[in-house]
Amino acid sequence: MTTNAYPLLQKVNTPSDLRTMSRSDLKALSDELRAYVLDSVSKTGGHLSSNLGTVELTIALHHVFNTPYDRVVWDVGHQTYPHKILTGRRDRMHTLRQLDGISGFPLRSESEYDTFGVGHSSTSISAALGMAMAAKRKGEERRAIAVIGDGAMTAGMAFEAMNNAGVLDGNLLVILNDNDMSISPPVGALNRYLAQLMSGQFYAAARNVGKNVLKQVPPLLELAKRLEQHAKGMVVPATLFENFGFNYIGPINGHDLDSLIPTLENIRSLEGPQFLHVVTKKGHGYKLAEADPVTYHGPGKFDPAVGIVKPSTPSKPTFTQVFGKWLCDMAAQDKRLVGITPAMREGSGLVEFEKLFPERYYDVGIAEQHAVTFAAGMACEGVKPVVAIYSTFLQRAYDQLIHDVALQKLPMVFALDRAGLVGADGATHAGAYDIAFVRCIPNMSMATPADERECRQLLTTAYEQDHPVCVRYPRGAGVGAEPLPDLSSLPFGKGEIRRQSTAPRAGENGNTQPRIAILAFGTLLYPALQVAEAVDATVANMRWAKPLDEALVRELASSHDAIVTVEDGCIAGGAGAAVSEALAAAGISLPVWHLGLPDQFIEHGDPAKLMALQGLDAPGIERSIRQRFLNQQA
Amino acid sequence: MTTNAYPLLQKVNTPSDLRTMSRSDLKALSDELRAYVLDSVSKTGGHLSSNLGTVELTIALHHVFNTPYDRVVWDVGHQTYPHKILTGRRDRMHTLRQLDGISGFPLRSESEYDTFGVGHSSTSISAALGMAMAAKRKGEERRAIAVIGDGAMTAGMAFEAMNNAGVLDGNLLVILNDNDMSISPPVGALNRYLAQLMSGQFYAAARNVGKNVLKQVPPLLELAKRLEQHAKGMVVPATLFENFGFNYIGPINGHDLDSLIPTLENIRSLEGPQFLHVVTKKGHGYKLAEADPVTYHGPGKFDPAVGIVKPSTPSKPTFTQVFGKWLCDMAAQDKRLVGITPAMREGSGLVEFEKLFPERYYDVGIAEQHAVTFAAGMACEGVKPVVAIYSTFLQRAYDQLIHDVALQKLPMVFALDRAGLVGADGATHAGAYDIAFVRCIPNMSMATPADERECRQLLTTAYEQDHPVCVRYPRGAGVGAEPLPDLSSLPFGKGEIRRQSTAPRAGENGNTQPRIAILAFGTLLYPALQVAEAVDATVANMRWAKPLDEALVRELASSHDAIVTVEDGCIAGGAGAAVSEALAAAGISLPVWHLGLPDQFIEHGDPAKLMALQGLDAPGIERSIRQRFLNQQA
Repeated sequence: MTTNAYPLLQKVNTPSDLRTMSRSDLKALSDELRAYVLDSVSKTGGHLSSNLGTVELTIALHHVFNTPYDRVVWDVGHQTYPHKILTGRRDRMHTLRQLDGISGFPLRSESEYDTFGVGHSSTSISAALGMAMAAKRKGEERRAIAVIGDGAMTAGMAFEAMNNAGVLDGNLLVILNDNDMSISPPVGALNRYLAQLMSGQFYAAARNVGKNVLKQVPPLLELAKRLEQHAKGMVVPATLFENFGFNYIGPINGHDLDSLIPTLENIRSLEGPQFLHVVTKKGHGYKLAEADPVTYHGPGKFDPAVGIVKPSTPSKPTFTQVFGKWLCDMAAQDKRLVGITPAMREGSGLVEFEKLFPERYYDVGIAEQHAVTFAAGMACEGVKPVVAIYSTFLQRAYDQLIHDVALQKLPMVFALDRAGLVGADGATHAGAYDIAFVRCIPNMSMATPADERECRQLLTTAYEQDHPVCVRYPRGAGVGAEPLPDLSSLPFGKGEIRRQSTAPRAGENGNTQPRIAILAFGTLLYPALQVAEAVDATVANMRWAKPLDEALVRELASSHDAIVTVEDGCIAGGAGAAVSEALAAAGISLPVWHLGLPDQFIEHGDPAKLMALQGLDAPGIERSIRQRFLNQQA
Repeated sequence: MTTNAYPLLQKVNTPSDLRTMSRSDLKALSDELRAYVLDSVSKTGGHLSSNLGTVELTIALHHVFNTPYDRVVWDVGHQTYPHKILTGRRDRMHTLRQLDGISGFPLRSESEYDTFGVGHSSTSISAALGMAMAAKRKGEERRAIAVIGDGAMTAGMAFEAMNNAGVLDGNLLVILNDNDMSISPPVGALNRYLAQLMSGQFYAAARNVGKNVLKQVPPLLELAKRLEQHAKGMVVPATLFENFGFNYIGPINGHDLDSLIPTLENIRSLEGPQFLHVVTKKGHGYKLAEADPVTYHGPGKFDPAVGIVKPSTPSKPTFTQVFGKWLCDMAAQDKRLVGITPAMREGSGLVEFEKLFPERYYDVGIAEQHAVTFAAGMACEGVKPVVAIYSTFLQRAYDQLIHDVALQKLPMVFALDRAGLVGADGATHAGAYDIAFVRCIPNMSMATPADERECRQLLTTAYEQDHPVCVRYPRGAGVGAEPLPDLSSLPFGKGEIRRQSTAPRAGENGNTQPRIAILAFGTLLYPALQVAEAVDATVANMRWAKPLDEALVRELASSHDAIVTVEDGCIAGGAGAAVSEALAAAGISLPVWHLGLPDQFIEHGDPAKLMALQGLDAPGIERSIRQRFLNQQA
């Protein structure tokens, strides 16, 4: 950081440095902070639009409240770069989301200012309420503040917390960071309601935010005016949030420190649940991001002066794209198909599907539980739902998967993107547990394609079944096996042998080394094939974690002296465990070695490096096999 | 059924028989139906209060709507006995909740009138919305109706569905069956809001429901009157449900067919999302149940003329009671302890705790997700939360367990009641998957006490740890091992050998039979000990599914020829799988046999019978061992 570029920012080492600054200095600081965020993210990649939108709010919060004594809980947490910069991590921003660098999300172990670890949305009100009630129990005066976006407010968990907070007497402040108007049409009733609030009270209270917002809803504006006049009569219509027992304040302009600071100062002394409605603009202050907050939501490295440039040569298609293409092709063939996403249109590859089949596309908002049971209701009626959901977010709908889908054996496809380690997003987003937590549910199946071609084929296989099937695939691209253009499928529950060992059995011709079979689940098939060349092992591409191809397992067990299972999911209860269970059930005992993710959370970093660190690249797998079975140090 | 007692009811074989009845016959029918429900439940046990409360609503729905073409989805489903009786299952009510009898909940496989299987709460709006949208896609005129209680409305999932339904154009009717006023103080803001609605509009619209409801809230009554007068001005204040895009109708008296039938007839022709607020009384029409709906919520067999008589000799304490006692004792010793329940005070054994420590007791409503993260927020502040939650309901908070609790390694205790098979409640409530789905999460531990004494000790051990620990225990009583009065603990992660085999090793002295070690997790220790006497096996009481006592596993593997694992959870990924994983990691291979719940959903019935059917009683375990390892047919 050059001192010249950021004269004020370089003086802020902790938030206490903010508390003595004049209002005009704070305004100047917000410009520096915004520039610093833009500069940092353009060099490291990361989230941009959301962070540009929270610059002033972050300054105001740390200026007004006595952090870290007062607790600020950021929802989702991808908007906390300004917070990180102001709380002692300014000079580590160049390490953001990299191995051994700082996390892209708040992390309790990283800073005392990070009061609650996040990554998934909609947890902040519950956590902050817990902190507020703990303060009450301990007789402490501290305030607990949840900062939550309007998208995250659609999740049921946020509602559960609001419902509970409204009847408790905790000193909880919920700040709704409302920025939905600027990016996409509202997906739920709550968003529509917020737009109504904006058109009404906001018009009177904070017209400086931008009147063009209101032009989109003229009838509501008229209604709002009449409501306002009317309200002067006797009773102001309670907002939805007041119905929940909160004191509602707002909406105010979240980019105006002259609104934010006095309002927060007033709220600071109020007792009981408070709700502040703040309106911000994603990408605020960087024209390119304001104009296209979706593209600038989570960019890679780019030149801020030029903006994001699309690569001239198309990169290898990702699994996400393979899924998106399959969905469109299958929808064209089968009118019964509908596509469902909990607010992950871009991330799950549904942009094209929505364009081609708008009436068969359902974005239900950040609402995984509802997404799954809504789909189950459709499946009861002969519609064929494909639910596109990240592996890590399926955790949010686990009970629905068991109770509403599996128990009723409804034919549905779950396309689980981001299976395995996800890289820069870190432990909160790891799709590490899906094989274990799905495999234990009766009636469920789980396919683990090894490459892009299989991914398309296994999606078709999944779609053809009369029961629920998950297909899991990782973030990014695979080996690049081009998908077939047709909608052919692969056999259900069957694996294949991809390489046959030529080694003798142990004991044959004086051979002392075991003949090894590697059973690979998913994309680790390819490193396994490399390793097999080096150690002359058989390799099976198992394709299905459930149902396991037990006949193939028995065949391999009877023709080999040792079995190695390989997967990019947790070892505990994973696909390897399924192999051991099958061997036990068949009464077979032979040496087995499970390779997969260990029993620990794995932080952010380059995915290839992280996998290598876990010994899950070709050299690591080879090393494990040589050490365990060949008595060799690799 | 004697014809004399139920002259009208005996003529109703399908709902179409209702549609030709006169209003006065329908009223007479409701009396018969209520009497029949009471008579049936008093003979079989089951849910009572909720069913007495839905008699008229059920008749009105089947009378007005064209079921099963129109879809009625009942939330939770324990209020569907009148529905079952009217839809062809009248003469099977004596088999309710018994093996091979009809289910206590709606079940798609049981009747075409059971449109969606339930058991857990708050799924109905999502499912019905799915059905409504499927109808729209298929061009069908059918209506989809969700009937949901005010308790179930507090779950986030219901909110997610409302939020989505409000912007879709499905022909969805949500009927709120509001009966909370009558049993307990409102636990959330929504309940309080409903009380306000009742005191306002309801007063004017349906004063026949009972004015004494209003006497409890005189200031609200006054406010409501003023609001009503005011409303005549220009704009009626939108209800919360209207804010969500629903057309709100009500509240109306849910025991008055003269209100219900015309209202439903009017609604039937309305397009788009409709919301009908119906007020009922739990236990309606049976004085004893009206006076004490909690006791009559789910009674065993009883004499309707006398009511429920408490047994004069106290029965063996249940695990639930052991937990409740431990919680009070530990709270008395440690001021940091708080107890948290998602609306399961009675079921989880927290009645006494609430009495003794009201300010340390948190009932957050039916809101498992919030319960867990709220507790996590408290744990961040040094408070020590004990979350009492049924095994099956922890599924609802799975992501929170991973993302908010385990990832941050927060010291918390989860008391998982109803682990294993639960009996009469059937597959929806089975606590069969918890070991598998918790074991795969880093930083989590899972204790499996074998009896009441250990349960208390392991709860203390769990409480002493610096990370999250689950303690799982079954419904009902165990062998009756009296808990120690003190708060002593057992070693963390350690099992014990309870019986040592005296058999020789295979190959020793010409012995051909394997020396067997049985590794028992949880209450199946006791049948395992019985079996061990018969087959001279070693028995280890493993106590912990995670961390597994790997030293003990290795020791047993090296001193025996075969291992049998026994647990009352799913085999797939369960504690037995953990043993196999540990053996593989240690490079040990020997014959292993996993006994536990198979990969299928197990319906309702007597728990002991169900376990015997799965071969998980002493004779079954012995039979398995003899067949597998001793080449004997038992």
